[in-house]
Amino acid sequence: MEREVNHDERFVKKLTPKSMDFSKWYVELIRKAELADYAPIKGMMVIRPYGYAVWENIQSLLDKRIKQTGHSNAYFPLFIPESLLQKEIEHLEGFSPEVAWVTHGGREELEERLAVRPTSEAIICQMYSKWINSWRDLPVLINQWANIVRWEKATRLFLRTTEFLWQEGHTAHETYEEAQKETLMILSLYKEFVETELAIPVISGKKTEREKFAGALDTYAIEALMSDGRALQMGTSHNLGQHFSKVFNIKFEDRNQDLQYVWQTSWGVTTRLIGALIMSHGDDSGLKFPPRVAPIQVIIIPISIGDWKENVLPVVKNIKSILDQAGMRVKIDEREEFTPGWKFSEWEMKGVPLRVEIGPRDIKKNQALLVRRDTMKKETFHLDSLKEKVPEILEEIQGNLLDEALKFQMENTNGTQNYEEFKAIIESKKGFIKAFWCGSEACEEKIKEETMASIRVVVLKEEEYKPVGKCAFCEKKSEDLVYFARAY
Amino acid sequence: MEREVNHDERFVKKLTPKSMDFSKWYVELIRKAELADYAPIKGMMVIRPYGYAVWENIQSLLDKRIKQTGHSNAYFPLFIPESLLQKEIEHLEGFSPEVAWVTHGGREELEERLAVRPTSEAIICQMYSKWINSWRDLPVLINQWANIVRWEKATRLFLRTTEFLWQEGHTAHETYEEAQKETLMILSLYKEFVETELAIPVISGKKTEREKFAGALDTYAIEALMSDGRALQMGTSHNLGQHFSKVFNIKFEDRNQDLQYVWQTSWGVTTRLIGALIMSHGDDSGLKFPPRVAPIQVIIIPISIGDWKENVLPVVKNIKSILDQAGMRVKIDEREEFTPGWKFSEWEMKGVPLRVEIGPRDIKKNQALLVRRDTMKKETFHLDSLKEKVPEILEEIQGNLLDEALKFQMENTNGTQNYEEFKAIIESKKGFIKAFWCGSEACEEKIKEETMASIRVVVLKEEEYKPVGKCAFCEKKSEDLVYFARAY
Repeated sequence: MEREVNHDERFVKKLTPKSMDFSKWYVELIRKAELADYAPIKGMMVIRPYGYAVWENIQSLLDKRIKQTGHSNAYFPLFIPESLLQKEIEHLEGFSPEVAWVTHGGREELEERLAVRPTSEAIICQMYSKWINSWRDLPVLINQWANIVRWEKATRLFLRTTEFLWQEGHTAHETYEEAQKETLMILSLYKEFVETELAIPVISGKKTEREKFAGALDTYAIEALMSDGRALQMGTSHNLGQHFSKVFNIKFEDRNQDLQYVWQTSWGVTTRLIGALIMSHGDDSGLKFPPRVAPIQVIIIPISIGDWKENVLPVVKNIKSILDQAGMRVKIDEREEFTPGWKFSEWEMKGVPLRVEIGPRDIKKNQALLVRRDTMKKETFHLDSLKEKVPEILEEIQGNLLDEALKFQMENTNGTQNYEEFKAIIESKKGFIKAFWCGSEACEEKIKEETMASIRVVVLKEEEYKPVGKCAFCEKKSEDLVYFARAY
Repeated sequence: MEREVNHDERFVKKLTPKSMDFSKWYVELIRKAELADYAPIKGMMVIRPYGYAVWENIQSLLDKRIKQTGHSNAYFPLFIPESLLQKEIEHLEGFSPEVAWVTHGGREELEERLAVRPTSEAIICQMYSKWINSWRDLPVLINQWANIVRWEKATRLFLRTTEFLWQEGHTAHETYEEAQKETLMILSLYKEFVETELAIPVISGKKTEREKFAGALDTYAIEALMSDGRALQMGTSHNLGQHFSKVFNIKFEDRNQDLQYVWQTSWGVTTRLIGALIMSHGDDSGLKFPPRVAPIQVIIIPISIGDWKENVLPVVKNIKSILDQAGMRVKIDEREEFTPGWKFSEWEMKGVPLRVEIGPRDIKKNQALLVRRDTMKKETFHLDSLKEKVPEILEEIQGNLLDEALKFQMENTNGTQNYEEFKAIIESKKGFIKAFWCGSEACEEKIKEETMASIRVVVLKEEEYKPVGKCAFCEKKSEDLVYFARAY
């Protein structure tokens, strides 16, 4: 039986089950699947080729959307002089505990300390004040792909690391309305991107004052539920108002020849999205990558028995080349030092969406066995049909992963207007709690203190639907519907 | 006459002619064309969208080649602990004068200083020593796209900046021969890339001991002649030997089960290539981008007279969409605040390879005027033929720019075996001097001291052709043919 797996040799036997210890499962999986590794600097990681390929796919799919909506990429300096960072007070206070400082260049001490960018508003605003003079220069729609450093106390691979990679959009507009439109357009672009490409459903809305970005007028976010029931912030879009333009003196002559300060936005997503992919879709056997961002979409495993090198390998190579040409990311595992069973479980752990097995007997029948990673369903197909079947199945897997995650999110979202019930839900089931909130920071903090649940987003009000209810904590009449959760 | 340019309004009139002051021309052009700007940190620059688009094109064309030759991208930390950087002594001595040091994280002083990477050998070797155990783990073929910081004393936009962007390949192999093969393969990959895509002819060869990378066994480089007659190093490929594997203890069990140190290479090109594009192809009217890396390949300028908005603009938009679909990068300049003449000279300055002018009279004749940036030749074509003609002309421009640069390089490369003549050539004509060199560091340094010309590369010896001559300085019999030049 060529497809019999010897369970003693299963690669994944050493993987801690997700249900037993989620955190341990998460870190073990990242390291065993070679997505990332710890670096010899506190809180820093190395993104290994298999993990970086996911980031490259994310970059390419998101960059296309960023450009299609009129933005261009640019590159601003890594270092920000301390005096620039100090200009916007709230911003400084929000970031200064996290800043890494450069104090020496070569053998000399610097006259002024340089912050390694914890975000680029300050340096970008400084440049915008030089570049923007007239309404004709607006809007400025710039994005940057860059590395960021924040001196975090508690770190976790991909989710919170001292250095991470991100994109940061920074735009300048003539009016508040235009900036607000941009902020919300990016919010829905992020939502569509994450749901379509990462197969992760998200909720979106506004952050409370307590949770907003240091220096923003309003912060909007998309949030997803990880499969342990905790929420993860997936991306943020800020309407910066004129906070920065006033301190950085970014003025323009408007259409009436009056001098005005520009209205700004900024927005970003980070390598944390890779952590979200792992925690949303992974299971006890390992990763489960959505095909659109999977580094390898199809792994072909020739069953290495008998004269496989003469009879199976050439067929397998031909199939790979057909699938390659159709634009799929395909790999053949022809290593001889491992059994097929070992390879099956290794590629399952690495989350490849679809496995193609072909042995000598299959060759005779002109067929291949296709095994889906998401459902583990196996089906035999004629070799000639693979060019059509494989992309079809990949699309099915993409859709199924989103459906599964959406089902999980719905099953783990509970509504309540009763605080005792609220506490019981958080303790027993975690997940999102949809509840009313009176808008007071006191209620928000009390709930956080007592349940460790924070307000993830305030649901945006629609014209037609304006619900009213009781604040989950103080029971006052409230018009703000919010999502609470324990979060990463 | 709709195409009459009013010379008083020419945008470029403010550009210092290249022949008058090359350095001034270079910096003015970069800033006027909005490729880059100075940042408020000594020696740092901002790469603006128009300049960054060139880098994105370079990245995409080079990344494809790097992947096709079996390499994968990864990402290593920005910071390197001082103790790691100290491990390889030559390497440390080469880089420590240029290192920016992080001494504080948040509000605390760090126990150990962290170098902002001046190159990543040290941190990568540290990781390789964990990842590599057996010959089965080899070769390791990893590349990284990253930002680099070197505290340079004298800086110049794109050519030498405190921070720059680059790619750095880092590979590990079983044998010296394999590492050497990789080193030379990358050298020729760089040569082919720069000549094909940037239309800049290069010479290639080995660096002398004096000029090689700190910590390498041998350094190879490609070098180009800028249009002021000075040489620019365009890329380097290093055979690192076992220098790093011995100090970082990167051992593997070989095919005979013996423990061996790996053999390594590293190689890179930087944002300096953008400087090379400017200095190789630019003229008194501005930039001249080769089509393959031009941010905008075709600028369409509707001649804004009469009822152009009703009659010309719809046709122009249709042409753009046809060219877009054929994969070209096309922009319409429909600004109303500028005259066509202003626009012509602005886009000439910005180096767009091909301009398409269409006015109301052209519409009646179903034609457009095409103006090449390289030759300034104008020709009228039928609108229906543009889909075929435009890519043809772009290819011609690409080829012509390479031919022109090659002609310049040949005209500015002189051979001599006489030191008086050597000095005369360097003083009067600059360019490359092809000469023999005895191999002694004393001769090399004397020449450098007296003429400011350094050895750019030692020509690689071929099996068939082994020239012998007299050292340009000491006149001893020499077998090394080298290129000298004054260099950036």
